[in-house]
Amino acid sequence: MPDVVFTVDQARSMRDQAVPGHNRWHPDIPPAVTVRPGSSIRVECREWTDGQIGNNDSANDVRDVDLSGAHMLSGPIAIEGAEPGDLLVVDILDLGPVPQEIGDAPGQGWGYTGIFSKANGGGFLTDHFPDAYKAIWDFSGQAATSRHIPGVKFTGITHPGLFGTAPSPELLARWNARERALIATDPDRVPPLALPPLEESVLGGTATGDALAAIGRDGARTVPPRENGGNHDIKNFTRGSRVFYPVHVPGALFSGGDLHFSQGDGEITFCGAIEMGGFIDFHVDLIKGGMATYGVTTNPILMPGNVEPRYSEFLTFIGISVDHGSDTNHYNDATLAYENACMNAIRYLEKFGYSGPQAYLLLGAAPIEGRVSGVVDIPNACCSLYLPTAIFDHDIRPSASGPVRADRGSCAVSS
Amino acid sequence: MPDVVFTVDQARSMRDQAVPGHNRWHPDIPPAVTVRPGSSIRVECREWTDGQIGNNDSANDVRDVDLSGAHMLSGPIAIEGAEPGDLLVVDILDLGPVPQEIGDAPGQGWGYTGIFSKANGGGFLTDHFPDAYKAIWDFSGQAATSRHIPGVKFTGITHPGLFGTAPSPELLARWNARERALIATDPDRVPPLALPPLEESVLGGTATGDALAAIGRDGARTVPPRENGGNHDIKNFTRGSRVFYPVHVPGALFSGGDLHFSQGDGEITFCGAIEMGGFIDFHVDLIKGGMATYGVTTNPILMPGNVEPRYSEFLTFIGISVDHGSDTNHYNDATLAYENACMNAIRYLEKFGYSGPQAYLLLGAAPIEGRVSGVVDIPNACCSLYLPTAIFDHDIRPSASGPVRADRGSCAVSS
Amino acid sequence: MPDVVFTVDQARSMRDQAVPGHNRWHPDIPPAVTVRPGSSIRVECREWTDGQIGNNDSANDVRDVDLSGAHMLSGPIAIEGAEPGDLLVVDILDLGPVPQEIGDAPGQGWGYTGIFSKANGGGFLTDHFPDAYKAIWDFSGQAATSRHIPGVKFTGITHPGLFGTAPSPELLARWNARERALIATDPDRVPPLALPPLEESVLGGTATGDALAAIGRDGARTVPPRENGGNHDIKNFTRGSRVFYPVHVPGALFSGGDLHFSQGDGEITFCGAIEMGGFIDFHVDLIKGGMATYGVTTNPILMPGNVEPRYSEFLTFIGISVDHGSDTNHYNDATLAYENACMNAIRYLEKFGYSGPQAYLLLGAAPIEGRVSGVVDIPNACCSLYLPTAIFDHDIRPSASGPVRADRGSCAVSS
Amino acid sequence: MPDVVFTVDQARSMRDQAVPGHNRWHPDIPPAVTVRPGSSIRVECREWTDGQIGNNDSANDVRDVDLSGAHMLSGPIAIEGAEPGDLLVVDILDLGPVPQEIGDAPGQGWGYTGIFSKANGGGFLTDHFPDAYKAIWDFSGQAATSRHIPGVKFTGITHPGLFGTAPSPELLARWNARERALIATDPDRVPPLALPPLEESVLGGTATGDALAAIGRDGARTVPPRENGGNHDIKNFTRGSRVFYPVHVPGALFSGGDLHFSQGDGEITFCGAIEMGGFIDFHVDLIKGGMATYGVTTNPILMPGNVEPRYSEFLTFIGISVDHGSDTNHYNDATLAYENACMNAIRYLEKFGYSGPQAYLLLGAAPIEGRVSGVVDIPNACCSLYLPTAIFDHDIRPSASGPVRADRGSCAVSS
Repeated sequence: MPDVVFTVDQARSMRDQAVPGHNRWHPDIPPAVTVRPGSSIRVECREWTDGQIGNNDSANDVRDVDLSGAHMLSGPIAIEGAEPGDLLVVDILDLGPVPQEIGDAPGQGWGYTGIFSKANGGGFLTDHFPDAYKAIWDFSGQAATSRHIPGVKFTGITHPGLFGTAPSPELLARWNARERALIATDPDRVPPLALPPLEESVLGGTATGDALAAIGRDGARTVPPRENGGNHDIKNFTRGSRVFYPVHVPGALFSGGDLHFSQGDGEITFCGAIEMGGFIDFHVDLIKGGMATYGVTTNPILMPGNVEPRYSEFLTFIGISVDHGSDTNHYNDATLAYENACMNAIRYLEKFGYSGPQAYLLLGAAPIEGRVSGVVDIPNACCSLYLPTAIFDHDIRPSASGPVRADRGSCAVSS
Repeated sequence: MPDVVFTVDQARSMRDQAVPGHNRWHPDIPPAVTVRPGSSIRVECREWTDGQIGNNDSANDVRDVDLSGAHMLSGPIAIEGAEPGDLLVVDILDLGPVPQEIGDAPGQGWGYTGIFSKANGGGFLTDHFPDAYKAIWDFSGQAATSRHIPGVKFTGITHPGLFGTAPSPELLARWNARERALIATDPDRVPPLALPPLEESVLGGTATGDALAAIGRDGARTVPPRENGGNHDIKNFTRGSRVFYPVHVPGALFSGGDLHFSQGDGEITFCGAIEMGGFIDFHVDLIKGGMATYGVTTNPILMPGNVEPRYSEFLTFIGISVDHGSDTNHYNDATLAYENACMNAIRYLEKFGYSGPQAYLLLGAAPIEGRVSGVVDIPNACCSLYLPTAIFDHDIRPSASGPVRADRGSCAVSS
Repeated sequence: MPDVVFTVDQARSMRDQAVPGHNRWHPDIPPAVTVRPGSSIRVECREWTDGQIGNNDSANDVRDVDLSGAHMLSGPIAIEGAEPGDLLVVDILDLGPVPQEIGDAPGQGWGYTGIFSKANGGGFLTDHFPDAYKAIWDFSGQAATSRHIPGVKFTGITHPGLFGTAPSPELLARWNARERALIATDPDRVPPLALPPLEESVLGGTATGDALAAIGRDGARTVPPRENGGNHDIKNFTRGSRVFYPVHVPGALFSGGDLHFSQGDGEITFCGAIEMGGFIDFHVDLIKGGMATYGVTTNPILMPGNVEPRYSEFLTFIGISVDHGSDTNHYNDATLAYENACMNAIRYLEKFGYSGPQAYLLLGAAPIEGRVSGVVDIPNACCSLYLPTAIFDHDIRPSASGPVRADRGSCAVSS
Repeated sequence: MPDVVFTVDQARSMRDQAVPGHNRWHPDIPPAVTVRPGSSIRVECREWTDGQIGNNDSANDVRDVDLSGAHMLSGPIAIEGAEPGDLLVVDILDLGPVPQEIGDAPGQGWGYTGIFSKANGGGFLTDHFPDAYKAIWDFSGQAATSRHIPGVKFTGITHPGLFGTAPSPELLARWNARERALIATDPDRVPPLALPPLEESVLGGTATGDALAAIGRDGARTVPPRENGGNHDIKNFTRGSRVFYPVHVPGALFSGGDLHFSQGDGEITFCGAIEMGGFIDFHVDLIKGGMATYGVTTNPILMPGNVEPRYSEFLTFIGISVDHGSDTNHYNDATLAYENACMNAIRYLEKFGYSGPQAYLLLGAAPIEGRVSGVVDIPNACCSLYLPTAIFDHDIRPSASGPVRADRGSCAVSS
C-alpha cells in the first residue's frame, strides 16, 4: 500500500480534518503535502457533499442539499520540480470505497445516486424530472445493487469524478471572465447557466485570513471540467488508467475527490454516479515540457486501463436533435440528441414496470455508454446510448411476446 | 446467399438500373419489390454519390461533387403485412464491398474518405478545414490502408450509413415544416442549416410524371436521420446487428444504402466514413404493434452484433464546451465539446508528422469511439474521443522521449 | 475480390475438377498454380469428405462415411522464391461458405457436425458415445442454428481446419517412421492409434502413374497436424489472422481446406466443427530465413485476428486427470482432464433436457474455450471448458430454483 | 469490508497464529469459525510456503524450500446448514495482497515466481530446466514488473490458487488409495508421481494429540486438485467470479489460500504464479441438494467475473504430441502438446535476448492463455499458447527485419 499522503477521518467533516482539503480552484491554496516524481501515494477522499446524504428511503436530503460547499476535495499535493508547461503523469493504481466498519457515510458499504430538484441544482433531464429522487446502492465486492431499483446488478467501473491541477492566476481570471459572461446572458435562469465564485462555505485548505478571503472571492467553483482537468466525470478514469494533466503552476498542485463506485456516460442525473468516499492510489511522474511537445494545451489526455467491466450485449437507443414535443429542429445539437436518446431509453424501461425516475437514476449509475454517433448529417446530430442487457435479471430485449411488466418497487422520493 | 431482391450493376448509374432506386424520402415512391416477413434478402447498393469520386490523388472531385442527387438509395422494399405502428425487425446478416473485378467504382477493392469544402457541403470541422481533401483506402480482406495516410491499418467495422422506412404523408409534412423553420432563421448560411426539398436531380424509383414531380417537390432530403431511421451513420450497425425500425406506412417501404467500410463515431468529415458500393444481407420480420408496446416512437432501437473489431488500448482526448480561441463559454454544448476533443486529437497527431487534414481524415474513417462523457457539470459539457493505438505501426503514446516525427506523406488535395 | 487461383465446382467431386486437389501430404504433388509473394489470392474448397454427408435427419451417412479419401485439399500453391528455411506469412483475409444457390453440398446455406462411430473413426469421447450421430446447422449470415439442437444460436468463428506446406522427403520419412512405430505398439486397436499411408482412394492433384503411385505409397495421411502445419483444427485461425508457416520444400507448396463455420476448442466429436465447403482469401508473403531467425522449427506461429465473436459470460466446467469410474489416477494427463471437463459439461446439459449426444455435438461446434489450466499440481492435470451462456435462449446458470428441463428434440441418429 | 473471520498476522508463521490454519485435507480438522449462508466474509491468507522465499536475487531459497509444510491454508470455515450433496456457492468479492507496511513477506508490495529444481519439486518443463530460478515481481496497483525480467509489465489477474471443501472420510480414503496405486507404479521417480500423506510438518488447525496424528497419517496432501476443488490453479477464479463447490461433509468446511497476483494458464513452473499472502473476500450461500440437481459430482463449476484484464493482440505458439528430440509420437497427449507449445514460446523469446529460465518464469506468471485446441486428430493432440504482445515494452511480433535482441538482464539463480 502506498504512503497515505492525505488522510481523511470519515467520521468528520472535511473541515475538521487534521489537514483540511478545499472546495474551490485557486493557485494560492497551500499544498497539503509535497511528493517526488516517481512516488506512489494514497489519497483519502470524502464523498463530494461532505456527507449530507443518508442511507435511507427519503430524497429530502437530496432535495435540500447545500451545494455551496461542494466539491470537497483532497489536496493540493505539490509535485517536486513540476513547472508550468509540464505534463503531470498520473497512474491510477487502485481506488475504492472506505472500509465499512468505520461509520456510515457514503462509501462505507453503500453509495447513492441522486436526482437533484430543478430548483436546487437540476440535472440533464431536469425539465422532464423537476423533483428530487434518490437510490441507495449496496456494494458487494465490485458489484452494486439497489433496493430502490430491483432487478438490476452490475460491476462498478470505479473512478474519481474529479481530479486536476491548480490554475495559474491568469487562467483563473480567464475562467471567471468567460463564465461570468455566460451567466450575464440569462442571470436569473433556474438552474443557473454557470456558478460564479462564492465566498459562502469556502474551504481553502490551511489558508486563513486574507488568503482565504481571496480564495472565496476569486476561486473557481469545482463543478465544470476546465483546462486543469477537474470534474470530468468520465467513467473510464478507472484503475489502471494513466492521465496526463497540464501543469499551470509550480508544483502542479494536484487535488481531487468525488469518487464514484460506478457511473454511466453523461452522469445524467447530476449526481448520477454512485457517490462515495474512499481512497485512491496514484503513481505520479512528470514529462518535462510535455504540454508543448505533445500539443496538450486545453485538456488532459487519458489512457484507460484494461480491466473495465466487460459486457457483450447491448440495447441501443438513438436520439436526434429534434424537440419532438414542439417539432422543432435544432442545428446539429448533440446535447439534445443525447437527451432524446436518454428519454427513449427511459420510456422503454417504463414498459417493464420501472418508474421514470427509477429508469433515470439507473441510466446515471449503470455502465451505459453514450456515443456521439453522427455530427455531420445536418441538421440532425445523432447520439446513442448503449445499455448492457446483462445488468438486468430479466430479459429486456424486444420480442414479439412483449415486455414483462412487473412490480419494480420504487425509488426514494421527497416528501 | 439470400435472394437478391434489389440488383445494382456497378458499372452504371443508379438512374440507369433495370429498377432504379431513389434519392428522396417520400411515401409515394413505388416499391421495387415485396418480400414476406421471415425472409432473408440481399440488397445491392451504389456508393452514395453514385460514383462521382475516383481512385486518384486529386481532391478536385470531392471539391466539385454534385450533392443534389445524394444519397442514392436501393429500394423501397415492401414488407408484406407491415402496418403503421409495427416494428420492422431487421437483422444485418452480412455486408461488404462489391467484387473487385466488376469495375473501378468505390467498393471494388477501394473506398474513399472526403473532407468537403465549406462552400460545398462542409463538415464537422469545416471552420478549421474549409478546403477539400481526400484519402483513398485499399481493402485487404477486412483491413484498410491508405497511401494518403501511411503508418495506419485497421479492421473495418463495415456497416450501412443509411437505412430507413418511408415517412407517412403527415410525418413528411412535419419534417418539411420544422426544417424550413430552421433554415428561415439564417437562410443565407454557408453551409446551410438544413436542406429543403429539391426538384433538381430527383430520382423516385419507377415513379414518373406527376408522381415524380410530387416527390421532387415534397420529398425529404436524405442527409439527416429522422423518425424513420435514415442516415444515422452509426458505425455499430455492423454485421450481426438487429435493428427495430418504426413503420409509418403500409408495407414499411424499407430503403437504404450509403455503405461504409469503416467509420469513426461522428463521421466527422461528413463523408468521413470509407464510402463504397456493395451488398447487404438482411433478415426481415415484424413485431405487430411494437411501436406502442415498446414505446418506440421517435427512433429505431438497435442491438449491435458481437463481432466488432476489438482493440484494448486507447489514447483518449477530451473536449469541453469552451471556444478556446475566443475564451467563450457555451452552455452544456456537447457538439462543441466533441469538436474540441477532435481538434485536440488532430493537434496531437500533427506532432507525429501528420498534416491536419490527414489527421482529420483519419478520425473520420478509423474505429474511434466518441463519448458523451459529462453533460451535467455546467456550464461545460465534456466529450471524449478514444483512438485505438494499435491502428498505428508506430508508437503514438506520450512518453518522456517525445513523439517520433516522421515524413507521413500527404493526402489528396484540390488544385 | 482476390484472383481465384484454385477453383472448385461444388456440384462435382474434387476428383472431377478441372485441376483436382489432393488428399495426402507429399512433396511431389505438382503445384496447381504459382503465385508471387505479396499476392492476394482466393482458394475454393470442398467440404473435407468431398460431399458424403447430406442435409437430412439420419446419421447413417456419418456412420458409413469413407474416410480413406479425406481430407480433400485444394492446392498445392507454389510461392515464387520460397525456399526451405523461410517462413510463409499468410494473412487470412476472408473466408466463408459457398453461395447457396449453386447446389446443396455442405457450405451452401448449411453445414453439419458429426459424431463418428467408434468402429469408423471415433472421436474424443468415443468410449462414452460409440455410435454415430449428426446435427445439421443452418447459416443465417454469421449465425448458426440447428433443428437438431434447439434453443441454441451462436456466431460462427469461421476458419480453415487444415492448411499447411508440403513436407520435404526427409520430413515425410520421419513422419512415416514415427507414426508406424506408434501403430506397432497396438496394431489392432479400434480406432487405430494412427493412420499409415494408404494407396486406396489417393488423389495427388495432377500426378498420375508412378508419381501417383509413390504418393499413395508414401504420402502422409492428412488427419494429424505436424511440422508443416496441417490439420490444426484451431478455431482461432479466423479472418484477420496471420500465420507463419515453416517452408520445407522449394515453393513452399501450400495446400488446405476443411473449412469450418464454427468449432469449439478440441473439436471433440472429430468432425465436431460445422463442416462446409467454401472459399478462403489469403495474402501471402515470405520472411526469408525466418525459421532460424525466429526459432520456428516444429510448428507455425499464429497471430489471431481481432473480430472473434465476443461473449462475456461463461459457465466453466473443470476436469482432472482421474478416471472417476474406476477411481484411477493418471499422471498429469491433460487429455484425460479435458475429457472429464467435457463429460462434466455434458452431464450438466442433460439436466436441462438435452440428450448426451446433443450436448456432445454442441460442445464440438459451439465457440467453447478449452483451457490447459494446471499441469504442475501432480498427479492431477486440470483442464477447463468455458461455455458461453448467451448462446442459449434459456438460462443455463445454476440457481436455487434448479434447471428448467424442457423437450429439446433430438439429433440425427443412425438406424 | 466484510467481517474478518480468519485472521493472519503476516509477521508470524501460520503455526503461530491465534487460530492456526492447516496444510492437509482431512474431515476432522476442527472448523476455525462458523458462518451463515448469505454472509460476506474476509479470509486472510499466508503465502503458500509460509514465508520461506525472500525478496532477493538468489534462488537458493527456492532450491532449498521445504515443501512438507505446504500449502498453508486458512480455515476451515463451517457453513451453517451445509450438508453433503449441497453446492456451496462462493462469490469472490475481492482479493489482494496484504498492505505493504506490515512487513516484508510475499504479498507486501511484492511476490515471486519460482522454478523448482528437479530434485525438489520440479515443474512442467523440469527436464529442460532442472535447476532452481526465481523472479521477484513488484506490485504497482494492479500491475506487476520484475527486475529479473525487464521489458515486461502486465495487469494481474489476481486469484486464489487453492480453495476447497473438506473430503468425507470415504472420499479421502479413495484419494489415498488411488494416489498410492499411482506412486507404486514408479516409487523411486524424481520428482515423484504423487505425494502420499506425510506426518512431518503437519498442521491441523486447532487439532492436537490423536486427532492431529490421524490428520498427519491420513490427511491428503494439498498439491493436486480433486473432487473437493482444491489446488486448481485456474487463473480465472478472479474477483467477480462465482464458484459452486460440492459439499462432502456437514458444514462444508471450506478452506484455502495460495493467493496469486497473476498466473498464466498451466502455472508451468509449479510455483509459476506470482505467489503472495493477502486477503480474499467471499459471499457464501448454498444450493441445497445441488450436486444431484445439476449433476455436479466430481468438480466445482465456475462462472468467471467480467473484469479480467483485456488484451486484444496475441502471438500464438502451437505444440503437438510429438517428442521432437527423439522423433517419437505419443497418442493424443495434450500434456506433451502443451509442453511443446511452451518450449516453442521459450525458444522464440530467446531470440529477443531473454534467457530460457527468464522466458519460462514469464510464461508461468504472465496472463498467457493455454488452449486445448485439437484432441481428435490422431495421433497428434494440438495445444496452443496465447502470449499477449502488449505486455512487452518492445515489439515481439515476427517481421522481415528480425527480432531486436537486447540485454535482458538475468533472473535469480542458485549458487
